Amino acid sequence: MEGKIITCRGAIVWAQQEQMKIEEIEVDPPRKGEVRIKITATGICHSDVSGQAGKLVSTKFPVILGHEGAGIVESVGEGVTKFKAGDHVVPIFLPQCKNCMFCKSDKTNFCVEFGTQQRGVMSDGTSRIRCRGQSIHTFLGFSTFLEYSVVPEINLAKVDMKAPLDKVCLFSCGVTTGYGAAVNTAKVTPGSTCAVWGLGALGLAAVMGCKNSGASRIIAIDINSSKFDIAKHFGATECINPNDLDIPIKDHLKMIAHGGVDYTFEAVGNVEIMKQAFESAMPGYGVCVLIGVAPYKAAMTLSPMDFQLGRTLKGTIFGCYKSVDSVPMLVDEYLNGKIKIDEFITHHMKLEEINDAVDLMLQGKSIRTIIDMKIAE
Amino acid sequence: MEGKIITCRGAIVWAQQEQMKIEEIEVDPPRKGEVRIKITATGICHSDVSGQAGKLVSTKFPVILGHEGAGIVESVGEGVTKFKAGDHVVPIFLPQCKNCMFCKSDKTNFCVEFGTQQRGVMSDGTSRIRCRGQSIHTFLGFSTFLEYSVVPEINLAKVDMKAPLDKVCLFSCGVTTGYGAAVNTAKVTPGSTCAVWGLGALGLAAVMGCKNSGASRIIAIDINSSKFDIAKHFGATECINPNDLDIPIKDHLKMIAHGGVDYTFEAVGNVEIMKQAFESAMPGYGVCVLIGVAPYKAAMTLSPMDFQLGRTLKGTIFGCYKSVDSVPMLVDEYLNGKIKIDEFITHHMKLEEINDAVDLMLQGKSIRTIIDMKIAE
Repeated sequence: MEGKIITCRGAIVWAQQEQMKIEEIEVDPPRKGEVRIKITATGICHSDVSGQAGKLVSTKFPVILGHEGAGIVESVGEGVTKFKAGDHVVPIFLPQCKNCMFCKSDKTNFCVEFGTQQRGVMSDGTSRIRCRGQSIHTFLGFSTFLEYSVVPEINLAKVDMKAPLDKVCLFSCGVTTGYGAAVNTAKVTPGSTCAVWGLGALGLAAVMGCKNSGASRIIAIDINSSKFDIAKHFGATECINPNDLDIPIKDHLKMIAHGGVDYTFEAVGNVEIMKQAFESAMPGYGVCVLIGVAPYKAAMTLSPMDFQLGRTLKGTIFGCYKSVDSVPMLVDEYLNGKIKIDEFITHHMKLEEINDAVDLMLQGKSIRTIIDMKIAE
Repeated sequence: MEGKIITCRGAIVWAQQEQMKIEEIEVDPPRKGEVRIKITATGICHSDVSGQAGKLVSTKFPVILGHEGAGIVESVGEGVTKFKAGDHVVPIFLPQCKNCMFCKSDKTNFCVEFGTQQRGVMSDGTSRIRCRGQSIHTFLGFSTFLEYSVVPEINLAKVDMKAPLDKVCLFSCGVTTGYGAAVNTAKVTPGSTCAVWGLGALGLAAVMGCKNSGASRIIAIDINSSKFDIAKHFGATECINPNDLDIPIKDHLKMIAHGGVDYTFEAVGNVEIMKQAFESAMPGYGVCVLIGVAPYKAAMTLSPMDFQLGRTLKGTIFGCYKSVDSVPMLVDEYLNGKIKIDEFITHHMKLEEINDAVDLMLQGKSIRTIIDMKIAE
């Protein structure tokens, strides 16, 4: 095997629901179709915490979480021609193999390889990362709470060298998902009325997507009113805290929005809120998009009549963007000022502070914390 | 008040779950915006039976059911200029007032007046039909199990005098709903794979809609295999009886259709089948359309993950056709041979046989029975 093993630091969850622990990790060289990256920055997403808690079907322990990273190519494996050492890249949890029936269809951004990447190991069934002699699982096809990470090339987007990696790492999950939910999944039309539940990164990105699609009324909803200023910055025209109302939010929206909302978005991951968002959509043509990720055993109870009356319910994965093709384009739109990214970042922290960063998110005190991976060499 | 009261026959359901009883009915002249029609033929739809059983939220007793009729204008009320005595017309349960926000939108066929017509009386709050001195309710805005019926003009389509009324009456509900579910709601694409659960009139019309949209594979599903010949006549390329399988139909479809079906249609009105149809839709881009009408208190339990994986769930009312504008066009397509109608009709019966006609339908022995209303004058 060519290439050397790199020893670096990573944040391991040794068992379900345990805190992350900084450990010394051995990272193998990349094999066929793989790329080893020096991760320079990573965001923390609610899905990381869901994985830690065992709420996602695929997480296997011990695991190194993290999937909102960006970095610089260190070396490439056999057959990799699209990337070379020094390239600036964003790894994305959703692959784009460009060979499967989904990748060849213009109706979806799904890729069959997504399924095969949920096993916590690389496509050959083995792991590239070890700690104390034990093989460690990856999270969603790879890990980013780790200074050097091996990523399948089909999950990798090369981005403009001018783009700051500690910002554009956020295009690898939440921001793209929320933004695309409005722009691609719902296809929000100019002049429409939208409502977004949950003002974390997903929801704020959805608000921005509604604004950039020309929506004339964007109602931002959260039980944490401290999020309202930033929601308005991203384009919300009004903000509602359901706890301030005397009636259910659904009835309130019907009252203030002529019977229903054109496009509704759930960015929380809670089945009761999903139901509210769906039922708040306008009869006749209202569209509700589920953005938040619910625990995998969660179930929604819905009335067929609410569909019969002309409502549509959709989900979105990565905002319906073809992953590898789209991230460089979105990065360009960021550099051109069309898409905001900097404003999602409320905190910068170090890898050893990662559990504190998670706490900040769970307490609703941060939107996104960027973990800066300064590697001592 | 101008015009005379007409005494004729109608089939009354005096109380919930009772059989229909042929009675002598007094029908008042039409008032402002109303038209009195000599009903010459009517189909029987499952919704009539659901109304009889009290499974629809709006049915009030005593009631005269029936909403798949056609007839000839007898007289018109004040202000009615679009219709005159002798016109051939099809009344439709879904109005098209052309004035409301829905009618003015090209995104829906909904009409705000639909809601106001669910009270079992005309828009002024009174009924035009009486029996033994008692005021009788209408069903979905009007009644067709009745020799003369008063219908709001916004529910009325004028059709080509060449069209046989005892055939085109079926465009007033089930056939249009099923056909439009494929053509308009799902927008079935050429070359696609479709699956339809339930091979009554709704489902067969959906099969025809899939075929006319260019689907290359149309899988017709029913637990009554005697429906398979007619399903093939309408365009099914293969038929499956789930009771003949060793595995759930959902798993069977995944196996035979490369992981899922492009477009699925539920035409039964059963929440468990709705769930099957939704979960059988292809991840990434599959669309499921609910056509069947479930009892109004029914609830479906669905997993958010099935949406997240890229499936869409929609409902349809009257196949997303603008009602009054579309029926004359559909009648023309029938006259031109593009849409089949005659093949839906398996039986012709008389008004006094209407309870037998219902039994035939419930036993799965008929697709549509036409009640021919020969009026002795």
